[in-house]
Amino acid sequence: MSIRIGIMGYGNLGRGVECAVRQNPDMELAAIFTRRDPAGVHPLTPGANVLPAEKAEAMKDAVDVLILCGGSATDLPAQTPHFAQWFTVIDSFDTHARIPEHFAAVDAAARAVGTLGIISVGWDPGLFSLNRAYAAAVLPQGESYTFWGKGVSQGHSDAIRRIEGVLDARQYTIPVESALAAVRAGSQPTLTTRQKHTRECFVVAAPGADLARIEREIKQMPNYFADYDTTVHFITAQQLAAGHAGLPHGGTVLRSGRTGWENEHSHVVEYSLKLDSNPEFTSSVIVAYARAAYRLRQAGETGCRTVLDIAPALLSPLPADELRRELL
Amino acid sequence: MSIRIGIMGYGNLGRGVECAVRQNPDMELAAIFTRRDPAGVHPLTPGANVLPAEKAEAMKDAVDVLILCGGSATDLPAQTPHFAQWFTVIDSFDTHARIPEHFAAVDAAARAVGTLGIISVGWDPGLFSLNRAYAAAVLPQGESYTFWGKGVSQGHSDAIRRIEGVLDARQYTIPVESALAAVRAGSQPTLTTRQKHTRECFVVAAPGADLARIEREIKQMPNYFADYDTTVHFITAQQLAAGHAGLPHGGTVLRSGRTGWENEHSHVVEYSLKLDSNPEFTSSVIVAYARAAYRLRQAGETGCRTVLDIAPALLSPLPADELRRELL
Repeated sequence: MSIRIGIMGYGNLGRGVECAVRQNPDMELAAIFTRRDPAGVHPLTPGANVLPAEKAEAMKDAVDVLILCGGSATDLPAQTPHFAQWFTVIDSFDTHARIPEHFAAVDAAARAVGTLGIISVGWDPGLFSLNRAYAAAVLPQGESYTFWGKGVSQGHSDAIRRIEGVLDARQYTIPVESALAAVRAGSQPTLTTRQKHTRECFVVAAPGADLARIEREIKQMPNYFADYDTTVHFITAQQLAAGHAGLPHGGTVLRSGRTGWENEHSHVVEYSLKLDSNPEFTSSVIVAYARAAYRLRQAGETGCRTVLDIAPALLSPLPADELRRELL
Repeated sequence: MSIRIGIMGYGNLGRGVECAVRQNPDMELAAIFTRRDPAGVHPLTPGANVLPAEKAEAMKDAVDVLILCGGSATDLPAQTPHFAQWFTVIDSFDTHARIPEHFAAVDAAARAVGTLGIISVGWDPGLFSLNRAYAAAVLPQGESYTFWGKGVSQGHSDAIRRIEGVLDARQYTIPVESALAAVRAGSQPTLTTRQKHTRECFVVAAPGADLARIEREIKQMPNYFADYDTTVHFITAQQLAAGHAGLPHGGTVLRSGRTGWENEHSHVVEYSLKLDSNPEFTSSVIVAYARAAYRLRQAGETGCRTVLDIAPALLSPLPADELRRELL
């Protein structure tokens, strides 16, 4: 029997989940839920069942895992605990600082009724977290580093769009190659924010807008840009559409550590992602963890989990003996 | 209370475990067991308890996890099931083709008496296996690649040493850069054995030995060298000691896959290790999994496990909430 997947929210991430479900023969798309008018939602899957979000409860016996595809700012903190009352849930909550409170809310909601949730699934948090945890456990005497990019930061692009006179924008986060090289060489450098990443912005300004002011406002924006070396390019809407339509991303997690009685040997562990489509890759990670969520719930487990709690074998469609034979 | 570690076999790997235990404050070295005369074994740890291997049973209540540091050819197939009758055991069994039978033997031994074992822990099998499993689960439409090196293959070095007229040898396995580059570029090439790795041998020959014959015997050796482009350098024992004393190794696991409704987007996941000391890094992985083995046994679990069955959080000394806050 297939694992029946429900998608809550049909944006880039929801569409990515739909594509990923199609690549996994042990899964099927049970329903797409939307807060928009279902008539205006056009899934890729012929005949897909599109329902209003408020009708989700009625589908609780027809969906094995509900994947929440909303945003971390306001959607997921409310939705994940809410839908845990009826469903095995999984989300990609990515506001690192608020993970403890989100975990507590989902854990309480799931335990109250005996369901299960996995939160913060994707690549960071997600696969990058796994690699930070594995490498730190293996090399306790060491330093960890995370570099992001080159890739589009949607949060930073949105921040630029909110500046007066900006019609559209795309922001790339770029790791500093010399910093990466120093870490790869095992020198365990101490790196400031500015030394690790640069930011490059492509901005479409309104006709007659004060470009110097826009550039200044971007470069001085606290948290987002002030601590970075930032370059700003003004381009046309046509140029933005032609050259910056995709959502590539990626990055690198490194740990540099030492072993030996006198710490005489050096080791570097590196994990890197080069992604053509950030939302589709994130969706693919979520769908693999949906398989784990389904299995854990079938085994009677309840409460909230993160990727750190999930054994890798639970992600694979292969039976345990075949996994050992083929991949170990 | 510390996790009390026993080491069975005090070679490069056993010494590496001893060093790794020292780096983990929640662990202590309980005993080193040896088949040699204990008086001839000189541990790095002052006052370490060195006992004959046949006295291990008497220490079963003083050791929480026994780490088996013998070889995969003959030691571990016998030792791991044998010592599972008294101990939680962990080994680095690395003969890929024989993992299923080794798993079955350890599983039967451990279940019969209610102990637990984790086999085939290290980096390949081990961390590389994890990365093959994670990446294949996330990108089902894709190809996986494993490259080893540049590093010393002890098995290949040993094979050269068995040739008549060879006094000593060191063999380096070297990945072919152009093949790595093609995989990284996402082209999913089909690669033969010869296209993936080359082999470079440094050989000390006996005085008057027939160098041409030795070189021919190396290059034509089935399984080990015949399928590779191999270069042979004859050097002196002094040169070997000066330039090739270490045991560096490493390698790269890649998966290149596609997502999207029409598989229109490409992604590359890469995991790589650069290790100054293969045995010390392997030992460090084993010691992290010893923590997991201890916890699983404390939780009442029994039978055989591999790295694929172990949730990453079990490897870390950090409590779950701190792991989520710091590393997720």
